[in-house]
Amino acid sequence: MDTERIPTFDDVLQARARIREVVHHTPVLTSRLLNAMSGTELFFKCENFQRVGAFKFRGASNAVFALPESQLARGVATHSSGNHAQALALAARIKGVPAYIVMPQNSPAVKVAAVKAYGAHITFCEPTLQAREETLERVVSETGAVFIHPYNHPLVIAGQGTAALELLEKVPQLDVVMAPVGGGGLMSGTAISVRAMSPGTLPIGVEPINADDAYRSLQAGHIIIPHNPQTIADGLRTALGPLTFAILSQNLDRMITVSETGIVRAMRLIWERMKIIVEPSAAVPFAAVLENPDFFKRKRVGIILSGGNVDLEQLPWMREPSR
Amino acid sequence: MDTERIPTFDDVLQARARIREVVHHTPVLTSRLLNAMSGTELFFKCENFQRVGAFKFRGASNAVFALPESQLARGVATHSSGNHAQALALAARIKGVPAYIVMPQNSPAVKVAAVKAYGAHITFCEPTLQAREETLERVVSETGAVFIHPYNHPLVIAGQGTAALELLEKVPQLDVVMAPVGGGGLMSGTAISVRAMSPGTLPIGVEPINADDAYRSLQAGHIIIPHNPQTIADGLRTALGPLTFAILSQNLDRMITVSETGIVRAMRLIWERMKIIVEPSAAVPFAAVLENPDFFKRKRVGIILSGGNVDLEQLPWMREPSR
Repeated sequence: MDTERIPTFDDVLQARARIREVVHHTPVLTSRLLNAMSGTELFFKCENFQRVGAFKFRGASNAVFALPESQLARGVATHSSGNHAQALALAARIKGVPAYIVMPQNSPAVKVAAVKAYGAHITFCEPTLQAREETLERVVSETGAVFIHPYNHPLVIAGQGTAALELLEKVPQLDVVMAPVGGGGLMSGTAISVRAMSPGTLPIGVEPINADDAYRSLQAGHIIIPHNPQTIADGLRTALGPLTFAILSQNLDRMITVSETGIVRAMRLIWERMKIIVEPSAAVPFAAVLENPDFFKRKRVGIILSGGNVDLEQLPWMREPSR
Repeated sequence: MDTERIPTFDDVLQARARIREVVHHTPVLTSRLLNAMSGTELFFKCENFQRVGAFKFRGASNAVFALPESQLARGVATHSSGNHAQALALAARIKGVPAYIVMPQNSPAVKVAAVKAYGAHITFCEPTLQAREETLERVVSETGAVFIHPYNHPLVIAGQGTAALELLEKVPQLDVVMAPVGGGGLMSGTAISVRAMSPGTLPIGVEPINADDAYRSLQAGHIIIPHNPQTIADGLRTALGPLTFAILSQNLDRMITVSETGIVRAMRLIWERMKIIVEPSAAVPFAAVLENPDFFKRKRVGIILSGGNVDLEQLPWMREPSR
């Protein structure tokens, strides 16, 4: 398929049919306490309960399952040290084809082990973007595997859009739907579903102010590459791609940026009050609610909780000297 | 009402109708990974998502709501530093009557704050059982409030039984239903519901081997009081009461005891794999599954996850030098 084509809501519907049997239809949770505290009505779509612990499995499985058998047979490949690597590895395993993952040699052992546990072949490289891309190119040319980009790919974006699709089917008449923005795959799919299904609902992206490249890119009208952004939301340090930039430019109501303190506070409130585990990136939209009470007051707000993969030995409030 | 009467399943049905509007109908979650790891089919009833973060709100609200207006007007009282205190405080607040809670003066500040947040009146006492009982007696005689025992009370037990009732309605044909045993209120209500609704299902109680007083009490045929048991499952250090002893003697298939290491491992697996927060006591039944693979193999197992109130600064795996 044309991997530069902008996906439509029809692609999201096809994705839903394609991956229905393998993804979890995750629950939507609410919390009286967080509603009372924020003066809003919050609906949390729990992709932290998704397989591999993040929404990434939706996009990866959609991209893998859509490949024709002829291409699929030689496997799939990507470079990632994060949730996309596990997601792609699991999708490939379900199809019985190899997954080749290029990981920086300084990746945490726990992440390497997780990717291995799904049966993927790992190739280590120097921890630079150049080394990752070169190594991936070599792996692809040696194996004939198909490269599945973590976000700048129409089928990946369409797959991610199925989370908002499920949310909107379950909870009508939302005023706002928010997701965190890293590479923009989740928010792009979310915006496509929101615009098609609920024209009165505002799709809003959120990112850390310390990694506000998407906000600045949309202001500038071209992609701005972040330089080594320092944020606890480690899933959101990535730049937009051409596809996600185009989709967000067209469909987003706005971007909101949040502070590091706000992210940690939001994450801790979700843990303490909702008793669910979310990673820092997933707490970013709720941080936006807490930091902008006037804007969100009395609104019905849908939030995609993007994932729950955290190191339980290293919780952010234990590193915060300010508490 | 007669507070020494053994409750029946009819009391559980009445409890369900009485508290329906105020309790959360908590979800039942499953996990492919934990199923694969344990060789069983597990169904987790998530009372960690219940109001006040524990099943205790079911029993407390049932006991409070069943009081005639004449008695209710003067309020309710208990001694507790745990989840029952918060549960009773919230139930009283909903009814607009005072709650009087006797707490040991060395209670953690976070628990005192939680009880205060529900608007209860707190009376501090020396941290001994005698001081707690004497102080409670004084508070009751001064205020005319009704004492609601945390577990040895038919309406409390009937209220706790509504969790298993909901589980069995949602998931039929379970081979086993398990709950942790401290004072025995949750397991008593669970056993009553299981015996009435699903005679082929075994109700099994679980406790730490370091606090195995219920196991020994049922063996001995009389209540054995534990002496300062040392277990991380702080909700399970309590002795049975006459009512819970009688119900468990009659209805339990068996008690299983588990190790401290097993509890921490089970708790961590639930956090990591299911992305939900449970307190150590809640992980005790899953520890029984992990420590008895032959017994549970291929069985369909329902587990009441009793609560999710933990100190997020002090997680057990951070204290374990063995990891």
